[in-house]
Amino acid sequence: MTGLNATHDPARRSWVESANAAGADFPIQNLPFGVFSQGAGAHRVGVAIGDRILDLTALEASGRLVPSPQERVFADGVLNPFMALPQAIWSETRARIADLLDAEVGGPQGLVTVPLVEATMHLPIFVRSFTDFYASREHASNVGSMFRGPDNALMPNWLHLPVGYNGRASTVVVSGTQIRRPNGQLKAPDVDAPSFGPCRRLDIELEMGAIVGTPSTMGQPVTTAQAYDMIFGYVLLNDWSARDIQVWEYQPLGPFQAKAFATTISPWVVTREALEPFRVPTPERIKPLLPYLEEGSANNFDIHLEIDMAPSGAAPTTISRTNYRHMYFSSAQQLTHHSASGCAMCTGDLLGSGTVSGRTPDSLGSLLEMSWNGRDPIAVAGGTRTFIEDGDTLTLRGWCEGDYRVGFGACAGTILPAVDYGR
Amino acid sequence: MTGLNATHDPARRSWVESANAAGADFPIQNLPFGVFSQGAGAHRVGVAIGDRILDLTALEASGRLVPSPQERVFADGVLNPFMALPQAIWSETRARIADLLDAEVGGPQGLVTVPLVEATMHLPIFVRSFTDFYASREHASNVGSMFRGPDNALMPNWLHLPVGYNGRASTVVVSGTQIRRPNGQLKAPDVDAPSFGPCRRLDIELEMGAIVGTPSTMGQPVTTAQAYDMIFGYVLLNDWSARDIQVWEYQPLGPFQAKAFATTISPWVVTREALEPFRVPTPERIKPLLPYLEEGSANNFDIHLEIDMAPSGAAPTTISRTNYRHMYFSSAQQLTHHSASGCAMCTGDLLGSGTVSGRTPDSLGSLLEMSWNGRDPIAVAGGTRTFIEDGDTLTLRGWCEGDYRVGFGACAGTILPAVDYGR
Repeated sequence: MTGLNATHDPARRSWVESANAAGADFPIQNLPFGVFSQGAGAHRVGVAIGDRILDLTALEASGRLVPSPQERVFADGVLNPFMALPQAIWSETRARIADLLDAEVGGPQGLVTVPLVEATMHLPIFVRSFTDFYASREHASNVGSMFRGPDNALMPNWLHLPVGYNGRASTVVVSGTQIRRPNGQLKAPDVDAPSFGPCRRLDIELEMGAIVGTPSTMGQPVTTAQAYDMIFGYVLLNDWSARDIQVWEYQPLGPFQAKAFATTISPWVVTREALEPFRVPTPERIKPLLPYLEEGSANNFDIHLEIDMAPSGAAPTTISRTNYRHMYFSSAQQLTHHSASGCAMCTGDLLGSGTVSGRTPDSLGSLLEMSWNGRDPIAVAGGTRTFIEDGDTLTLRGWCEGDYRVGFGACAGTILPAVDYGR
Repeated sequence: MTGLNATHDPARRSWVESANAAGADFPIQNLPFGVFSQGAGAHRVGVAIGDRILDLTALEASGRLVPSPQERVFADGVLNPFMALPQAIWSETRARIADLLDAEVGGPQGLVTVPLVEATMHLPIFVRSFTDFYASREHASNVGSMFRGPDNALMPNWLHLPVGYNGRASTVVVSGTQIRRPNGQLKAPDVDAPSFGPCRRLDIELEMGAIVGTPSTMGQPVTTAQAYDMIFGYVLLNDWSARDIQVWEYQPLGPFQAKAFATTISPWVVTREALEPFRVPTPERIKPLLPYLEEGSANNFDIHLEIDMAPSGAAPTTISRTNYRHMYFSSAQQLTHHSASGCAMCTGDLLGSGTVSGRTPDSLGSLLEMSWNGRDPIAVAGGTRTFIEDGDTLTLRGWCEGDYRVGFGACAGTILPAVDYGR
């Protein structure tokens, strides 16, 4: 299941011509899985190819998805039943889909495809649990330096373990969902008591999300090699954050309502297998890791990432360009640490990487860092910003670039005004 | 749905004679819901009555559960479909079950009951998410005083909001499940780097768990009155904790693997309606609350709680006696705060109250407090303890006492040795 095979052959082309265009996000070598509907129709599982979607629910029902899982795993309009199957079946299914879409060995006869522009995309998975990490050394150093000074930027544990916390699964939403500005308790440093009202320091966090396919058993930790294979695929993830709620609530048990109101993910799950050609090692260790976290292979990925910001009615401005490859801990290391205590991992668990920040001012993953906690406004078309204003649209994009491009599409959200609480 | 009705009448007696005995946990006024099986049979929903279980899955299938939900909500062997029904149906179903079990208006004809001793109990709910709070002022003051000194015992936010964090749903298990001691990163204050190995400061936390029945909508906060009604019922909850893992990992994002390995709940969900006669107000406010957290009614409950500790082969010793009524924030206030940002609450969400500690040395909810972080061993039959040793069994018990007793049964777990990691 690990390594390169015929599905990675750069010479392959699809009979869906748009998939062969230079710069296409969804060539035949990508084949990301998602969930879509048309009109008032039911949710269906599909694979993106060029500017179309191959309907896997229909393909499975037709009996042509051979070799096929025995049961109808694409009938429920969610990826979890397929992700729970053995990893070998993930690969066999991918190989079969590639053949069906191949310009030489496949063809459109009997296949249902739908134009992307006619489809409504839905959350691709039932998110069993959402865990968020904090694995960019640059991000952790920036935030730590801002609040504790440069000499205490990184906590003593940071270089030894992937720091993480449990997030809220019920509010993970798909790209395009409008996000309501949260209310919460806010306390300025110069007053005695908190007040209650709309967040004034609303922020993004640019992250990647790893999706667990293969579950683990309670009480049985997994190795980094096992963890790498357990991950079904990756999405873009925006961990919306209310900085002013966070700073008042987070001691001593961590972020809670500051993060609970919404997390947006991109609709297409790029499989780990599609990312194989883009594997890179984690950065050099500053301190040696404990043996359980060591990796025998390159488990990071070279993924270009960008953030666009667009005030209402204005054109988008790209406010950050960075790369996932700089993350100090890989998703496999995070998953291994997550299971180290015996914690059971489940099909549909979503692991946020932590904010991806680079070393330069134009490669930061949060407005908190870009504006240095609101001190330095940044320029965007239509104005300046320290944090997000109502009506702003934030869009993340990501892609791997090699002999071909493996794109993640977009992860977007527009901010609505807060509920008028009146209490 | 709120308030007293015929199901609370102390004069009622059941034709199941054991339910009428003085001190019985499950009289006809209690009627807690659980999930059980017999032999290799399927999971079934039942109600405890005296020393027997009324089989609701069979009752529903027989058509005698009138008024009845339209669909077969007890067929899946889990309470979630029933808890998702309107609150009026919870009450109607309870009233119907009370009539069927009543010595005067009901009778055993055509009802399937099973002796408790022949049943295997299972997790009663699918835990959608687990959130853990920190709402005992005595517990928070003790722990804060231990680590930050008496002058900084409570964090500045503590009296203003119910401090909480997201826990791990996948490792919530039912009473009786054996618990494996976790491994994790440990660092002594006098060494430079952490090591990896079995937890040496394994602890309990005595808590109550509130189970959400009625969901809320993302972006729409709920009031304390709505929150009170949304709660279907309560269980005993033991939030097993690895203190040495926690102290190294928890900065700055809160507890993670120190809590993720296991949380045990009691098998019988005592409905909120059964607890109505035992409502008490929260303690007097030390500082005024923000209006969204104010309560117009008494939303705490008078629940006696005990902890037993039994080394392997030794008799149990009761090491704590306390009461849930002292909690500074009610479950309704916790649920309201949880939704304040717009966070969607779901059927099957489990909210841990936080450790319930009283004001005296014999009423503490954790060994951390009882042994003052390992300094003062406590006496138990068969030895002394600072923290938990392999083979020890910890059992929580809880009950309300008035004209009759509403019991929660037991919440127990025995500790197995850690996995030999060898890495």
